[in-house]
Amino acid sequence: MALLVQKYGGTSVGDVTRIQRVADKVIAARQQGHDLVVVVSAMSGETNRLIELAHSISEHPDPRELDVLLATGEQVTIALLSMALQARDYAARSFTGSQVHILTDSVYNKARILEIDDRRVRAELAKGKVVVVAGFQGVDEDGSITTLGRGGSDTSAVALAAALSADECQIFTDVDGVYTTDPRIEPNARRLDQITFEEMLEMASLGSKVLQIRAVEYAGKYNVPLRVLSTFEDGPGTLISYEEPRLEKAMISGIAFNKDEAQITVNRVVDKPGIAWKLLGPVSEASIEVDMIVQNNTGDERTDFTFTVHRNDFKRALQLVKQTADELDAESVDGDATIVKLSLVGVGMRSHAGIASRMFKALAEEGINIRMISTSEIKISVVIDEKYLELGVRALHQAFRLDLPIQIVEPGEQPAA
Amino acid sequence: MALLVQKYGGTSVGDVTRIQRVADKVIAARQQGHDLVVVVSAMSGETNRLIELAHSISEHPDPRELDVLLATGEQVTIALLSMALQARDYAARSFTGSQVHILTDSVYNKARILEIDDRRVRAELAKGKVVVVAGFQGVDEDGSITTLGRGGSDTSAVALAAALSADECQIFTDVDGVYTTDPRIEPNARRLDQITFEEMLEMASLGSKVLQIRAVEYAGKYNVPLRVLSTFEDGPGTLISYEEPRLEKAMISGIAFNKDEAQITVNRVVDKPGIAWKLLGPVSEASIEVDMIVQNNTGDERTDFTFTVHRNDFKRALQLVKQTADELDAESVDGDATIVKLSLVGVGMRSHAGIASRMFKALAEEGINIRMISTSEIKISVVIDEKYLELGVRALHQAFRLDLPIQIVEPGEQPAA
Repeated sequence: MALLVQKYGGTSVGDVTRIQRVADKVIAARQQGHDLVVVVSAMSGETNRLIELAHSISEHPDPRELDVLLATGEQVTIALLSMALQARDYAARSFTGSQVHILTDSVYNKARILEIDDRRVRAELAKGKVVVVAGFQGVDEDGSITTLGRGGSDTSAVALAAALSADECQIFTDVDGVYTTDPRIEPNARRLDQITFEEMLEMASLGSKVLQIRAVEYAGKYNVPLRVLSTFEDGPGTLISYEEPRLEKAMISGIAFNKDEAQITVNRVVDKPGIAWKLLGPVSEASIEVDMIVQNNTGDERTDFTFTVHRNDFKRALQLVKQTADELDAESVDGDATIVKLSLVGVGMRSHAGIASRMFKALAEEGINIRMISTSEIKISVVIDEKYLELGVRALHQAFRLDLPIQIVEPGEQPAA
Repeated sequence: MALLVQKYGGTSVGDVTRIQRVADKVIAARQQGHDLVVVVSAMSGETNRLIELAHSISEHPDPRELDVLLATGEQVTIALLSMALQARDYAARSFTGSQVHILTDSVYNKARILEIDDRRVRAELAKGKVVVVAGFQGVDEDGSITTLGRGGSDTSAVALAAALSADECQIFTDVDGVYTTDPRIEPNARRLDQITFEEMLEMASLGSKVLQIRAVEYAGKYNVPLRVLSTFEDGPGTLISYEEPRLEKAMISGIAFNKDEAQITVNRVVDKPGIAWKLLGPVSEASIEVDMIVQNNTGDERTDFTFTVHRNDFKRALQLVKQTADELDAESVDGDATIVKLSLVGVGMRSHAGIASRMFKALAEEGINIRMISTSEIKISVVIDEKYLELGVRALHQAFRLDLPIQIVEPGEQPAA
């Protein structure tokens, strides 16, 4: 018998029939003897409907009042799910974010959770009730309703699991787990049984949009075992935890990609201290986020400086950089929005040499030119031409045999290639 | 400069355009220098939509969760109206029933208000803000959301006005005031400028469904001047207060009627103490409400006993009474659901003789047979055949010249007939 926090997103509670199915799943877990806290989102489409309503009243709706409005979405779902459970003779009790007292700061529309009072939830659990909590919302010190921003229900679930020291936080969604890469691009993509928080963070931020990144960070910080699984199919899903798969010494967990970036290169700028700061200062002052940054000094007195930004910010960033580049007497500035970033992610690569060269070789064999490289402890990212996205993903998936069940590699052994 | 509580019902906030119009009306009052607390209902149709949603989940939805669900209706409206005010640069702040702390008992779906904490509202008013409060809802001691039952927003408004000692509670609706009778039946019906609480109670309970009866009771109890006026047309509406119109010594304020009643008569039952109790006991035990009760003992040892119930309860009540009547050896029991109750209401009748006879004469002249009579201090009710409803209303309206502006009657004078 365990204490589980389950979270069901908007698609999972999208209509009355689906809410009934969620009730079935909750009851199944209850029948196994588990204590249950269930966090739900607004029914799919509801949040957008409310936002449209707000915008039909005002172009820039007051942020506080927008949260009052949006919070009704989850409030509807908690009531309906609790009714569905009660109708099947399972005691249940709903809580809004304010009632359970999910205390947040007062940054309306994207508040951060400060503290959760677990007493009311524990009291209801002790009475044998299923506790149903509205995700995505909280309350500030002043008693005003706040919301956590899009996808905030994941964060609510993880935060509740942390506050309650739950045995597992289960995120039910419309996919059945985390995959080695996007199955729409590589049909041989395989569901991972297990993955670490660090890997998941790299995967999530790089475009495998299964979980909200803040929720993963939060789960990692408070060491809440997180499981991603499907509302619509039975299966074990993917467990995200600190534990590295015991027998599964996989080097690589998966391949992530990001099609939303653009590249800006400053050619042959005089290499003096402060160049990076001078070039990127005006960009960050304009609230443009920079992702990859690469500078390659070839020993020359001049250097090339390249970075990537979101495509939405591309034109603005290019303009800003051109101004600075002129002042710095750079030779030229190039920009390209037809790029894609591919990343190989895996904690296993920490202890294995040769991953990078194997990656570059696989791409080279397909004639894919690498325009930018950046590496971290558990990730190697390359920027390539957009048109090579599918080809590159499949080449890497094949090169690292991600289609096969994870290989058992004992220390000293080489993985079977 | 006054403190006004304004209440706008579901039709008045039925869509975005109407909410904008309500914002205009609020601002107009604000520009006259008044402090404003605005109580709103759910957008029309929304409460029914939510109830249907609940019933699609469960035939008998859990009452606590039903209130969690229904309360979202007004929460949407407070957010939208506050946004509309802010968008026009008028500072506004919304409060749910829970936030303003409208404390109620825990009788879900029909809770009663126990106490209102006026501090938060006063603090926002002091900052020059328009305070927008969700009607129909409150919070119990346990922190659970409650609702006050259909039409409860009127009660919320009156209770807030009482707690704040507001100068006036203005109920905006789709009619422009209280009329001498239903204008659909008597085209000469006239809007009353003023009416007393007692009269309004008699009018409301008898079918002139302008205001929720609990709200009028509450207003009377706490002496909150209540004004009924139209959202859609300008005009002074009708003021309901304790004050009797100073120069307007009207005998009669209006004519109310009720088409929802049925009559049950026990013929020739032995007239012994306890007969009324024995006949009505089983009826009230079955939770059937009895309205008029008439017993006419002609000196005989047997008597006739007649009462009215709601038509929905007619068959059940008739069955129960038949059983008792048999036990009491009554001669027979009759029932008739094709009746209507007409009532003449007016505080003025207290000091004027001859009202009843004038009423009966007017009906007799139209050949309308009176089947039952019952009187109170400020009301005379008669039961007649349903088919005479329109004829009866018009005959009385004409007999008491309710179409004319109210006559000034000095003490000692007779009203101009």
